[in-house]
Amino acid sequence: MAALLVDGLQYANWSEKIFRQMREGGVDAVHVTITYHETFRETVLNIEKWNRWFEQYPDLIFQGRTAADITRARTEGRTAIFFGSQNPSCMEDDIGLIEILHTLGLRFMQLTYNNQSLLASGCYEAEDSGLTRMGRQVVSEMNRVGLVVDMSHSAPRSTLDAIEHSTRPIAITHANPASWHPALRNKSDDILRALGQSGGMLGFSIYPHHLQGGPDCTLDSFCQMIMRTADLMGPEHIGIGTDLCQDQPDSIVEWMRVGRWSKTIDYGEGSASNPGFPPMPDWFQDNRHFGRIRDGLRAAGMNAADIDGVMGGNWHRFYETSFGPADRQL
Amino acid sequence: MAALLVDGLQYANWSEKIFRQMREGGVDAVHVTITYHETFRETVLNIEKWNRWFEQYPDLIFQGRTAADITRARTEGRTAIFFGSQNPSCMEDDIGLIEILHTLGLRFMQLTYNNQSLLASGCYEAEDSGLTRMGRQVVSEMNRVGLVVDMSHSAPRSTLDAIEHSTRPIAITHANPASWHPALRNKSDDILRALGQSGGMLGFSIYPHHLQGGPDCTLDSFCQMIMRTADLMGPEHIGIGTDLCQDQPDSIVEWMRVGRWSKTIDYGEGSASNPGFPPMPDWFQDNRHFGRIRDGLRAAGMNAADIDGVMGGNWHRFYETSFGPADRQL
Repeated sequence: MAALLVDGLQYANWSEKIFRQMREGGVDAVHVTITYHETFRETVLNIEKWNRWFEQYPDLIFQGRTAADITRARTEGRTAIFFGSQNPSCMEDDIGLIEILHTLGLRFMQLTYNNQSLLASGCYEAEDSGLTRMGRQVVSEMNRVGLVVDMSHSAPRSTLDAIEHSTRPIAITHANPASWHPALRNKSDDILRALGQSGGMLGFSIYPHHLQGGPDCTLDSFCQMIMRTADLMGPEHIGIGTDLCQDQPDSIVEWMRVGRWSKTIDYGEGSASNPGFPPMPDWFQDNRHFGRIRDGLRAAGMNAADIDGVMGGNWHRFYETSFGPADRQL
Repeated sequence: MAALLVDGLQYANWSEKIFRQMREGGVDAVHVTITYHETFRETVLNIEKWNRWFEQYPDLIFQGRTAADITRARTEGRTAIFFGSQNPSCMEDDIGLIEILHTLGLRFMQLTYNNQSLLASGCYEAEDSGLTRMGRQVVSEMNRVGLVVDMSHSAPRSTLDAIEHSTRPIAITHANPASWHPALRNKSDDILRALGQSGGMLGFSIYPHHLQGGPDCTLDSFCQMIMRTADLMGPEHIGIGTDLCQDQPDSIVEWMRVGRWSKTIDYGEGSASNPGFPPMPDWFQDNRHFGRIRDGLRAAGMNAADIDGVMGGNWHRFYETSFGPADRQL
């Protein structure tokens, strides 16, 4: 079987067009965001929407639950869709919902989205107080059932706390090294080193606010950054996490940033003069363009085995040991 | 492997004591009621409660999802717990919740509980208007995902409608022939014959209001009734559905009957002078006493193969073809 292709995060305005582009691009699996600030019941409504898409487009997509679904997707010529949440709103204040959401297929959950949550501090808070009392309980429960802790939008101390407290490797599904581009959402070398040493995974983001030079970032600069991060973390601990928000109206980035927590606008990574979704770099517009990253890594001098790992093999291996109880694969 | 033992319905005040009695009685599987009038979110809270029991008593019970879990239960010396709902309140007015509830393990759902629902008429309504517009849609969706239609508390025309409209066999998990004991909850020979001819299943209830003579019903009378029903429906279409409500306080029977639909008391099958749970017959008090029914059927002259079917084999076969999409076993 040729190398697998897995994207560590997307949040698109899903449509048949996008599902067909996934097939055209040979994408075997995508971790998709299904919820941000939604309550449990609202998150279930979002899953219902996905269930309709699975029913409507069975030749293009199906719900992924285990690592084996990635190879099954390859064999059947479809794309496996794995669910994730970017905020713990979906579990409300009820630790029992962790197992319920896992049963419904949730495989990643961020402990925070920019702000302080019940569990930890977000990367936009002035104070980073680390994992809360409930946060420690929830991480243990996530470890028990096999729901991956994702700290992409979390603050540094909280992230290090999660790496330390979690008995299983965690993920930062969509971010880049701050040493390459100093955004609040990007991660320090200390965090990335600790993440790699603990067996965790980093997915490289192509969301322009996370890129050196924004939308003008070159493919070569992106690939050189990947090479350096392979040296820092180990080449088996990195993958892609495009953060592709294809075809979304700007009202959605407002929902992502503001949810219902504020009555005034918060620009997050944007600004008053640049409030909407930024344009993607010309070398990555949609799911048909992963081959360009593969070519870029080759041009940058990465060896073939490491490229296969970055493009999907590493996520596949991580999925194999992350989605079920610790004592057995799901 | 010796004959399987499956109970088609219980709603006990669950405890370690009862789980141990299941093991003592060699009960391989039980369809348990997890919800009556609860909303979706409240039903999820009930599942969370079950998840805690599964975590707490893994040597006694586990969640059953497929027929194979019954034989697994036998092999591992545990009891498989299959979820069911006695009313469609848990799906609210949202057909998308059918698949969500199935994913969470729901395997049976009654279309009505005594009253008119959004889907059909209950057995206590003066008018029985049959399956509603939504009821027909919901039955089709239940057929699609593999959630069994249960008409135990439904009115006659609605029950016949469901048998006819459903493309897959349905169940009456806990009731008896009205020809033996004319309760509103018991079923006419016409219904039972149609149920058997369509491949459906009847589970014989031991709830005293469904028994000839109530709590004084003899084991012999119960077993003779089973023999006659085997002749009427075919011996492969019958099983046990005790409706055991062990250790429940009378406040629970009031919840079952009144839920939140009325501000005044409704006695259901009881009466002002007999409002609580009736005492069970002396020959069946709890899960340790299924052997007595087996002995009773033998004494009544039923052959060994038919007895094995009634005590569990028939439910096992029904589970095999009922819990997944129609085109494949789950």
